[in-house]
Amino acid sequence: MKQRIGIVGLGLIGASFAKAIRKTDVVLYGVDTNPATLRFALDEKTVDFELTRENLPQIDVLFLALYPNGIFEYVRENAQFLRQGAIICDFCGVKQEIAAVLAPICAQNRLVYIGGHPMAGKERWGYAYADETLFEHASMLLTPDSSANDVQIETVANICESAGFSRVICTTPEEHDAIIAYTSQLAHVVSGAYMKSKTAEKHDGFSAGSYRDLTRVAKLNETMWTELFLYNRTNLIREIDSVIHHLEEYRKALEEKNEPCLKELIREARERKEALG
Amino acid sequence: MKQRIGIVGLGLIGASFAKAIRKTDVVLYGVDTNPATLRFALDEKTVDFELTRENLPQIDVLFLALYPNGIFEYVRENAQFLRQGAIICDFCGVKQEIAAVLAPICAQNRLVYIGGHPMAGKERWGYAYADETLFEHASMLLTPDSSANDVQIETVANICESAGFSRVICTTPEEHDAIIAYTSQLAHVVSGAYMKSKTAEKHDGFSAGSYRDLTRVAKLNETMWTELFLYNRTNLIREIDSVIHHLEEYRKALEEKNEPCLKELIREARERKEALG
Repeated sequence: MKQRIGIVGLGLIGASFAKAIRKTDVVLYGVDTNPATLRFALDEKTVDFELTRENLPQIDVLFLALYPNGIFEYVRENAQFLRQGAIICDFCGVKQEIAAVLAPICAQNRLVYIGGHPMAGKERWGYAYADETLFEHASMLLTPDSSANDVQIETVANICESAGFSRVICTTPEEHDAIIAYTSQLAHVVSGAYMKSKTAEKHDGFSAGSYRDLTRVAKLNETMWTELFLYNRTNLIREIDSVIHHLEEYRKALEEKNEPCLKELIREARERKEALG
Repeated sequence: MKQRIGIVGLGLIGASFAKAIRKTDVVLYGVDTNPATLRFALDEKTVDFELTRENLPQIDVLFLALYPNGIFEYVRENAQFLRQGAIICDFCGVKQEIAAVLAPICAQNRLVYIGGHPMAGKERWGYAYADETLFEHASMLLTPDSSANDVQIETVANICESAGFSRVICTTPEEHDAIIAYTSQLAHVVSGAYMKSKTAEKHDGFSAGSYRDLTRVAKLNETMWTELFLYNRTNLIREIDSVIHHLEEYRKALEEKNEPCLKELIREARERKEALG
């Protein structure tokens, strides 16, 4: 029998995921809080059927592509309609706080919980920007709960690979959140802080690749990212403190006109980038 | 008669510039502190002749593609050999401190001084990485001294356009340094500070475009950039303070779990990026 996959939330990530696995031998059920988006997804055959309470019991794997608070609400209301042993995988950018809420609900309903974080995105969001190639060359991070066995993890990993991810990596929610605070969330905070200089207003004609790179990820959906930042605030605060500390080292060397120290700071950054990629 | 152009320093910028204007109807004279580099440039016909004290009097426009301290030394020793009315244009990333030294020497020797800053680069440097397309789509910033008339500025601007620059913008050394501290130097400092988090050591597999963008310009030639940073320290310190101040705003909102404030900070950054590009 064909695998039956549910996708809750047909924004950029959910709809891109649906389009990416569309070509494999699955039946896709989708739902979105916006009825017009769902209508569009059905008309375009991005999904085969509307996901409803009536067909939830047929779902093998349910992917949740909503903001954290939307996921909590959906799972609280609908976990009871899934069959025992069905797999739930969310696509949130933080994992500890999500697991803390979802794992007990899944355990209670005999569902399998596997956290997920597709390391891909765009500066635009919503169904209209969905793209079946979005996950190519990207990592999918999975944080399987103790409820998940190897076969179930393999099931989710296989679907992710068929969506185009080049790597599927299993980790713990704790390690995930600690590293993501740095590689993703801090990048957005720093880029945003960078944009706020008064001098940004005069950059046109005086800027090139450095400015472009540093400011690209300042363009965030504030509703989603406020939730993500707050759910990972301890890790994110630690990383903000680290970058401020290192900025102050440069500042001090400049203030004191300490040429050897400044040179050493620049050299060290270069060597770390060369070594770590 | 063909325009006679001298290029002092055949590293990434000097050699790329030579290769880019090679196809126009000029005679190119070049020199480098490294005899092997000069030999290579002559063999490859990147330049036509070695630039020497003997042929300096024939040069119409002399471009200086050295580090600041190298430029001062070269001009102090060689300005006397140029003919009156010859144009000197340096390619340094800072302009006030360079103009402060070069303008008086040029005045004394009846030379014309026009500061220049090609807004292009690579994470690699040296003759081997020279590329005739390096300046395409880039801005060339010129800071002409009061010694320069419109015809002389036009002469330099025309050569720059023939090198491929898409825009040639005239400004003052003061405005140049204030804006460049932000668009270029701050980007490198922030990128370097970003690389220094302990967490960078674990980024592999957990990072995507945001990490890549934020850390790309951490790879700097520390000899050149130490000079550039110190020559523009007042502006750069002001920009570092600005980014630290704005990072602290995010930190405070996170610390206090102030959701409306955090959302507003993210929204403001997005709107500035959308408005300013």
